[in-house]
Amino acid sequence: MAQPLRSASPDELKELAQDVRARYEELKAKNLALDLTRGKPSTEQLDFAQELLSLPGDEVKASDGSDCRNYGNLKGIPDIRSLWAEVLGLPMELVYAQDSSSLNIMFDLISWSFQFGNNDSPRPWKDEEKVRWICPVPGYDRHFTITEQFGVEMVTVPLTEDGPDMDQVRELARDPQVKGMWCVPVFGNPTGITFSEEVCRELASMEAGAPDFRIVWDNAYAVHTLTDEFPPVYNVIRMAEEAGNPNRFWFMSSTSKITFAGAGVAFFASSPENLAWYSSIAGVRGIGPNKINQLAHARYFGSAEGVRAVMRKHAGSLAPKFQRVLDILEERLGGYEIATWTKPQGGYFISLDVVDGTAARVVQLAKDAGIALTGAGSSFPLHKDPNDRNIRLAPSLPPEEEIATAMDGVATCVLLAAVEKLGA
Amino acid sequence: MAQPLRSASPDELKELAQDVRARYEELKAKNLALDLTRGKPSTEQLDFAQELLSLPGDEVKASDGSDCRNYGNLKGIPDIRSLWAEVLGLPMELVYAQDSSSLNIMFDLISWSFQFGNNDSPRPWKDEEKVRWICPVPGYDRHFTITEQFGVEMVTVPLTEDGPDMDQVRELARDPQVKGMWCVPVFGNPTGITFSEEVCRELASMEAGAPDFRIVWDNAYAVHTLTDEFPPVYNVIRMAEEAGNPNRFWFMSSTSKITFAGAGVAFFASSPENLAWYSSIAGVRGIGPNKINQLAHARYFGSAEGVRAVMRKHAGSLAPKFQRVLDILEERLGGYEIATWTKPQGGYFISLDVVDGTAARVVQLAKDAGIALTGAGSSFPLHKDPNDRNIRLAPSLPPEEEIATAMDGVATCVLLAAVEKLGA
Repeated sequence: MAQPLRSASPDELKELAQDVRARYEELKAKNLALDLTRGKPSTEQLDFAQELLSLPGDEVKASDGSDCRNYGNLKGIPDIRSLWAEVLGLPMELVYAQDSSSLNIMFDLISWSFQFGNNDSPRPWKDEEKVRWICPVPGYDRHFTITEQFGVEMVTVPLTEDGPDMDQVRELARDPQVKGMWCVPVFGNPTGITFSEEVCRELASMEAGAPDFRIVWDNAYAVHTLTDEFPPVYNVIRMAEEAGNPNRFWFMSSTSKITFAGAGVAFFASSPENLAWYSSIAGVRGIGPNKINQLAHARYFGSAEGVRAVMRKHAGSLAPKFQRVLDILEERLGGYEIATWTKPQGGYFISLDVVDGTAARVVQLAKDAGIALTGAGSSFPLHKDPNDRNIRLAPSLPPEEEIATAMDGVATCVLLAAVEKLGA
Repeated sequence: MAQPLRSASPDELKELAQDVRARYEELKAKNLALDLTRGKPSTEQLDFAQELLSLPGDEVKASDGSDCRNYGNLKGIPDIRSLWAEVLGLPMELVYAQDSSSLNIMFDLISWSFQFGNNDSPRPWKDEEKVRWICPVPGYDRHFTITEQFGVEMVTVPLTEDGPDMDQVRELARDPQVKGMWCVPVFGNPTGITFSEEVCRELASMEAGAPDFRIVWDNAYAVHTLTDEFPPVYNVIRMAEEAGNPNRFWFMSSTSKITFAGAGVAFFASSPENLAWYSSIAGVRGIGPNKINQLAHARYFGSAEGVRAVMRKHAGSLAPKFQRVLDILEERLGGYEIATWTKPQGGYFISLDVVDGTAARVVQLAKDAGIALTGAGSSFPLHKDPNDRNIRLAPSLPPEEEIATAMDGVATCVLLAAVEKLGA
């Protein structure tokens, strides 16, 4: 175990700097072309769902007797709605199955709130002087890009081990211009943090200044465990109803990282009033979702337990990759006290914090050495990490050996940027 | 052949009225439950695409080598884009393949023009004092519902045999508040009218007062022939470019009435600038379309000629139904001069004009006799047919014998409403 870098003597630092620079030159000489940028499933994971490529097969009736090949059914077919409701611990009536992308649904909910106002809006959001939004950070870049597109002012809140800092959230939510909040409540992107039951209950029950305040509850990783344990899924819709805020949550889920990325089934769960409002516009936008794909997914999974069985296979594939990243970080950076990183029990990411003011430099050094990392700051609104500290690592796609090579390189870059920062 | 009703003597009219009332009572006594409301494919048609239910099968690479199971490719996969570009007679670069519904794309284009302005907008449409829209009538109800949702003022223009009345269209398009126009250029819904080449060229070249004026070119029935002939598909995008209006057309197409309704592939074709603008927002809304479904469709069709082969089967199934409707209309109503109807060479509908002021009555009479027709006026903006004259007949879904029974009943209702109107 190395000693803390800050307590090293000038000579020790200089020696380390020489050593690190030499390693970095060796790294560059390898002419790598490795990519840790995005949370994409690996080929191995995609192969688990191979059967789905020939489904639904000849039987085309949904459990309600309707022909999935024809028009109709804006809510999605009961076969997959009931199955997924069980996965999420929600009543089926509150779960709609749509096309493949939950991101599409989130965008539309916000877009339509701007254009028309949602079911609790005094006026369309476009007619508000200002719309503000609570953004726990680090968070999911594509969430922030949506609110950015609509000119929303994004207010950041730090994450604790149990979820967002609720003192700050409570205070912000009182502002009537704060219309919403992004949340990834389970195995968050990129931190892996899972909100505690208490945080869930507080989010459901806290006072909101805007009557049309909404929490986008993007439960993208609800079943994406890296261990043998599945996290509890709290029924926040019921919690909110019990607290007198029935329409608070727009609850999202999807099979994109369970079956095929971009060709799965996305789900929108919410209160009856929210669903009615959504349907009133979705029914103008179109006739209904792709029910053939929904039927294929229902046949493929068979049951909620079938979903968990698939996810155990995923864990078997992903957990060793995550462990490898953690091992290398510990081996190469442990003891220097120049970096901290999350040790997620699920999800798709490891969040790495390096020396303040060096994240962009680390990403640049890695890029110059042929290792593509997600841009520094990308887990923050407007890509602005105020401390230039955070780097999102996505170990899902490459094979384990490539990850090891890439992470060893990244560790060298982190060290090099740190000694540079210390003037060595 | 009967004589014109208006030239009948009072006694003749009275006798006919007695006869028609008797027939209507017989009709009601049958307790029918028949439905001619919507343009849905029949089971027979859907069965043509049975093979698609087990596709794409194990080979998951698109022709560009990308894995269709993973994220990416906002434009859609080249396999289906190139195939469909050939069907439409357009360059592949201008044709994007998306999810299943072209209606979704039309809604989004208009929604985003309101929210953000399109690539030629001086300002977002939401900030315009008024947005007006040219609506050829009778037209597609779901088009009108979209513009209604956005509070657009819809200005109707009658259709001639060659397309919309171009004198009126040219005049209206000069108004800078007129931002768009709905068109179904081939085998229109519900008239079956196909725009002539000259009309296409005029629409492409006419002056528009608004720089961001757009024609939604919903080519939903481009290959939906009822004969052995396929209509020419004009490259209006090139026509517009040549006329100095490169961004005029938002061109739509879909396989919804070719493979599976609501589970096909939708296409958006337009100028490079329009596509870039669309992508700049679609890429915020999501990562990309369902490429597995696109690959399945590319495999199923094989080629543009494969599409035409499928459509010949459709014609074989649909044409006898259409002929049966036309035969019954002629047999029961011919000579009375109380109704006219279209004799489409393709598409999904027959448009029936009855005695002015009786369409709603006909639909009600039919409903009371157990025959569901599309609501009177539904082919007009806000469901208001100023003449209460038009009824849309959709013969695609029911088996031929049911259609015959229903149409014979409808003819009785048309006659009864006519004699009522004449005071008999």
